[in-house]
Amino acid sequence: MAGFDSAMDPVLAIYPGSFDPVTNGHLDLIERAAKIFQRLVVAVLRNTEKAPLFTLPERVEMLREVSSAFSNVEVDAFDGLLTDYARRRQAQVLLRGIRAVSDYEYELQMAMINRRLEPELETVFMVPAVAYSFVSSRLVREIARLGGPVSGLVPPSVERRLRAKGTY
Amino acid sequence: MAGFDSAMDPVLAIYPGSFDPVTNGHLDLIERAAKIFQRLVVAVLRNTEKAPLFTLPERVEMLREVSSAFSNVEVDAFDGLLTDYARRRQAQVLLRGIRAVSDYEYELQMAMINRRLEPELETVFMVPAVAYSFVSSRLVREIARLGGPVSGLVPPSVERRLRAKGTY
Amino acid sequence: MAGFDSAMDPVLAIYPGSFDPVTNGHLDLIERAAKIFQRLVVAVLRNTEKAPLFTLPERVEMLREVSSAFSNVEVDAFDGLLTDYARRRQAQVLLRGIRAVSDYEYELQMAMINRRLEPELETVFMVPAVAYSFVSSRLVREIARLGGPVSGLVPPSVERRLRAKGTY
Amino acid sequence: MAGFDSAMDPVLAIYPGSFDPVTNGHLDLIERAAKIFQRLVVAVLRNTEKAPLFTLPERVEMLREVSSAFSNVEVDAFDGLLTDYARRRQAQVLLRGIRAVSDYEYELQMAMINRRLEPELETVFMVPAVAYSFVSSRLVREIARLGGPVSGLVPPSVERRLRAKGTY
Amino acid sequence: MAGFDSAMDPVLAIYPGSFDPVTNGHLDLIERAAKIFQRLVVAVLRNTEKAPLFTLPERVEMLREVSSAFSNVEVDAFDGLLTDYARRRQAQVLLRGIRAVSDYEYELQMAMINRRLEPELETVFMVPAVAYSFVSSRLVREIARLGGPVSGLVPPSVERRLRAKGTY
Amino acid sequence: MAGFDSAMDPVLAIYPGSFDPVTNGHLDLIERAAKIFQRLVVAVLRNTEKAPLFTLPERVEMLREVSSAFSNVEVDAFDGLLTDYARRRQAQVLLRGIRAVSDYEYELQMAMINRRLEPELETVFMVPAVAYSFVSSRLVREIARLGGPVSGLVPPSVERRLRAKGTY
Repeated sequence: MAGFDSAMDPVLAIYPGSFDPVTNGHLDLIERAAKIFQRLVVAVLRNTEKAPLFTLPERVEMLREVSSAFSNVEVDAFDGLLTDYARRRQAQVLLRGIRAVSDYEYELQMAMINRRLEPELETVFMVPAVAYSFVSSRLVREIARLGGPVSGLVPPSVERRLRAKGTY
Repeated sequence: MAGFDSAMDPVLAIYPGSFDPVTNGHLDLIERAAKIFQRLVVAVLRNTEKAPLFTLPERVEMLREVSSAFSNVEVDAFDGLLTDYARRRQAQVLLRGIRAVSDYEYELQMAMINRRLEPELETVFMVPAVAYSFVSSRLVREIARLGGPVSGLVPPSVERRLRAKGTY
Repeated sequence: MAGFDSAMDPVLAIYPGSFDPVTNGHLDLIERAAKIFQRLVVAVLRNTEKAPLFTLPERVEMLREVSSAFSNVEVDAFDGLLTDYARRRQAQVLLRGIRAVSDYEYELQMAMINRRLEPELETVFMVPAVAYSFVSSRLVREIARLGGPVSGLVPPSVERRLRAKGTY
Repeated sequence: MAGFDSAMDPVLAIYPGSFDPVTNGHLDLIERAAKIFQRLVVAVLRNTEKAPLFTLPERVEMLREVSSAFSNVEVDAFDGLLTDYARRRQAQVLLRGIRAVSDYEYELQMAMINRRLEPELETVFMVPAVAYSFVSSRLVREIARLGGPVSGLVPPSVERRLRAKGTY
Repeated sequence: MAGFDSAMDPVLAIYPGSFDPVTNGHLDLIERAAKIFQRLVVAVLRNTEKAPLFTLPERVEMLREVSSAFSNVEVDAFDGLLTDYARRRQAQVLLRGIRAVSDYEYELQMAMINRRLEPELETVFMVPAVAYSFVSSRLVREIARLGGPVSGLVPPSVERRLRAKGTY
Repeated sequence: MAGFDSAMDPVLAIYPGSFDPVTNGHLDLIERAAKIFQRLVVAVLRNTEKAPLFTLPERVEMLREVSSAFSNVEVDAFDGLLTDYARRRQAQVLLRGIRAVSDYEYELQMAMINRRLEPELETVFMVPAVAYSFVSSRLVREIARLGGPVSGLVPPSVERRLRAKGTY
């Protein structure tokens, strides 16, 4: 076996989500994934269904700030079907972070439907650091809304924006 | 962002297991993983604890037969701590297939302990085709032992070996 | 033991749901259940709580179209308490399809409460074909809304109606 | 729709298990199933793998004692592949009791493999009374071995046999 | 070891919830907890997010009625962050009842975040009687809304109030 | 409400287990529980079924070493039925640590059966620090057996004993 399959294209992985806002758990996963995929696109879902706390441009900007240190990470936005976006980007990998068992069930269902919609796109699951295993954007928004401390749960720049939003 | 991070080493992923015997579910996962990692090492655990149905050389040989079509896949054997083996191979990724929720819990625990033992090794989970979501080596051995049909659950060469073993 | 207990009434099973719309997973379950229960009533919940995509008459009509081949299957609508409806229909069995673990937990809770409300009604769980294990009405509506393909997930007549709705 | 599909054969359901020994949870399920299936065969697995507490004839005899009141229930023994036995008996239904989530996962896997081995055999799940939701044969054997009380967990005749075994 | 650590403060446990309305499952847990914690505060969440069926004063009054027999149980209301309330009350224990697996996952996540927000507050889980393992306030409201019987699921005084609400 | 219910006996909690060997997760739980129960008995199960790595006296001694700082913690050994032991000790609380979902299911089953065997004994669940959520005695033994590092997973005195055992 040759050490490297030179015929193989560099792998593009898409990490989709609402990122409302990006947490230290997301950031931990971006850092881990950036080491094993040649290109990583963090893809922010426009999400027209429910009103987000941060606008799409704010969410993209926060992600760009916190991921600027990773040269192979790009931040983008999308709407419509995720598999359509992945096809346009010619991605081979769909990256999802998972923590709890109930996450996993939903994620497994989505992986199956996405495989049906786009057989060439492979879903890959990674696990954030155990210290972030209980952190979610929803929890961060809830704590901020009730005036609780979110330092350590989100990057400092996100904490400042939560404070500026007046929710915290 | 540049299209390709040329400073990045090609990624070596290890897919460890007992493979007693390799099933169509394993093979499906190997095929999927071979498309997204530059090198994939299928690493057969010597497993001195419980008596396997197939010897280590038999298990390695069956895997080599069924994975010979993939130019970037290597079959190897190991014993001792998986993280020690991964360090020797300079692997960046530990690949695990998951199907059910109870699988996932155990796998999550192992990912956490392996991260502690070797922080530079990232566990990545992939999901086999839904048609193989209920196939396991243990189930194949059990069906073969009771004289049931295993065609469609394992590659034809493995089916022949199960028959030759006289278990089936 | 006699081959048949002639004193036993033919069994009436009720398969309740929103069916908004009926999927190939539902249809698969109807086909399986029609073989083991003498009469099967597919009972569409009026569901006044949340706005459905299809009206109650549309949902009933779609179900009638796709289940017309089964001579012992009837389609009906109900509102109010499911156990009250089952009592009026003199049903002995409440049929539920289950797929994932989180489904199962909720279903188990409902089976317990329904048993308390109507001790003579027995909840019975069946499993759709593995190919449909990830299909749900909610997912079908979401894919159709985003313009994705739903063929293979729902019967052709339902696909046409989704298209006619203009959601797809 | 006619009230009864006279062309339909009476349904034979098989309820397989080790029944080492039969518990009140098993008995509760037999009683429930006997009301909805025309014939119910309780099928005791010979289980040559691990040494049972009660011999196969003892397990069959205990089941016959406690199920004698149900005229459409038969007790039988089998070995080999369950689906082969079901085919010989011309059963249409495989009945399984489930309680906890981890039960369910294993049961789902077995239902899928059994469907593959015998597509005409449908697995159906039922739930014992909530009062028995924590009772299992293994737990009964363990409590009896440690000298604890098992009354209320098993039928009185089984309790006497546990005492006669000298384990209790 | 001395029989009693006289330097230790009596333990104050907080049992938070919406209690909309209090069920027999809640009451069972209060009774159990009142035996092992020196003081128990049942803390009703004001919950400004979603419209409750009963007002906060109604929920507090119902709880006071049904817990009046326990001399070491107090009923209180709170809003804001639960950990802030616990700190003001100088509570050492946060009590949560759990039933199902999916409950447990969410509860575990909350326990971790609350530990981070208030390290001196220890979350403790207890399990209601198995007969109440399927009862929840949401289910009680749903059954009452559809005109079904809730006796046995809630204390008689709560049943009267549900009837007076005209929902039942 | 009075600040302290002086009629109430100090609470004795039993924390049972094999502790083969005690881990930092166990120790974390002992420390947390010692703050909320007036007396805590760590009860080591003799466990005659499977051969332990450490003898019962060794396991008791290790626990005494690591818990000597807690004045209200006692280490004891027991065999037979746990509920019989709890009755002899006049314990009101059975303490169990839980981590994963599959743990929880088994623990819930045991809590139910123990409540039946001894209604006055209340099972209470607590959660170790998230950093120890993946540590178990079995995992520690396995890593030590394969020559891996266990520092940080067990107290230093236990690490020395594992090394002295020659397994590590």
